[in-house]
Amino acid sequence: MSNEEYMEYTIQLAAENVASNGGPFAAIVVKDGGIIAEAGNRVTEQMDPTAHAEIQAIRRACEVLNDFELKGCTLYVSCEPCPMCVGAIYWARPDRVYFAAGRDDAAQAGFDDDLIYKEVSKDPHERSLPFRRIPVQDEALPFKKWEKKDDKIKY
Amino acid sequence: MSNEEYMEYTIQLAAENVASNGGPFAAIVVKDGGIIAEAGNRVTEQMDPTAHAEIQAIRRACEVLNDFELKGCTLYVSCEPCPMCVGAIYWARPDRVYFAAGRDDAAQAGFDDDLIYKEVSKDPHERSLPFRRIPVQDEALPFKKWEKKDDKIKY
Repeated sequence: MSNEEYMEYTIQLAAENVASNGGPFAAIVVKDGGIIAEAGNRVTEQMDPTAHAEIQAIRRACEVLNDFELKGCTLYVSCEPCPMCVGAIYWARPDRVYFAAGRDDAAQAGFDDDLIYKEVSKDPHERSLPFRRIPVQDEALPFKKWEKKDDKIKY
Repeated sequence: MSNEEYMEYTIQLAAENVASNGGPFAAIVVKDGGIIAEAGNRVTEQMDPTAHAEIQAIRRACEVLNDFELKGCTLYVSCEPCPMCVGAIYWARPDRVYFAAGRDDAAQAGFDDDLIYKEVSKDPHERSLPFRRIPVQDEALPFKKWEKKDDKIKY
């Protein structure tokens, strides 16, 4: 299948996802010329604000590959990913991401991606949702334990 | 418990999480003066790059509350959240977030939060991981179906 065909398939998935009470978004993960995972947005149905299509497709693809990375994979997403999903994509490390609609289309449909992009880029203390630092004596302890751990798996 | 006591508890959780083969991070969700959810980072153990402490604590708290939002809740996080988790926090809409260590501490311990902050803020076509738009004819279809759906649950 061509990139355009994979994308058309992803768009149809997103449209079907609305019909089955999900949000208007879908994502697929392709490896070696085949779809290894697909998902729609299920936030309200699963009562999980992190159940965006990309997050779910990444989790499923990692399960299929039994890995915490998606090297060699391509993500097709019906709409430009929100900052949460861009972050998830960086942690998952696929080779590339293709998207169709843009963040402005999402904003027009009532999804606050653009606002969140602006907020994520701000210093924590300047955000509209309060992020405050509480310094405590042991705050470096988890990192110290991590550095000392000989059998740690880096990610 | 005071904010400092909740934070000390979260730091201890993060330290214990390293001992049980997780990453050096933990998060708790507090509502009405009690902890309703807690989690450590389990990326490598669960083979899930999205299994950061904040994501898992948010999902568990939403399950407890049977809601896709965390209004009235406070998150305590052992370290400043990465962009994925900041995005998740905006979608979950808690009242506030407290953190102890900063993104520089995470970077020193080998976690690329700071790089991802820079990447998320860039235009998609300027990112180091390729994000490319593939325009297709039906790309607005999911949003059109969403707008027409009378019984949709907005989130």
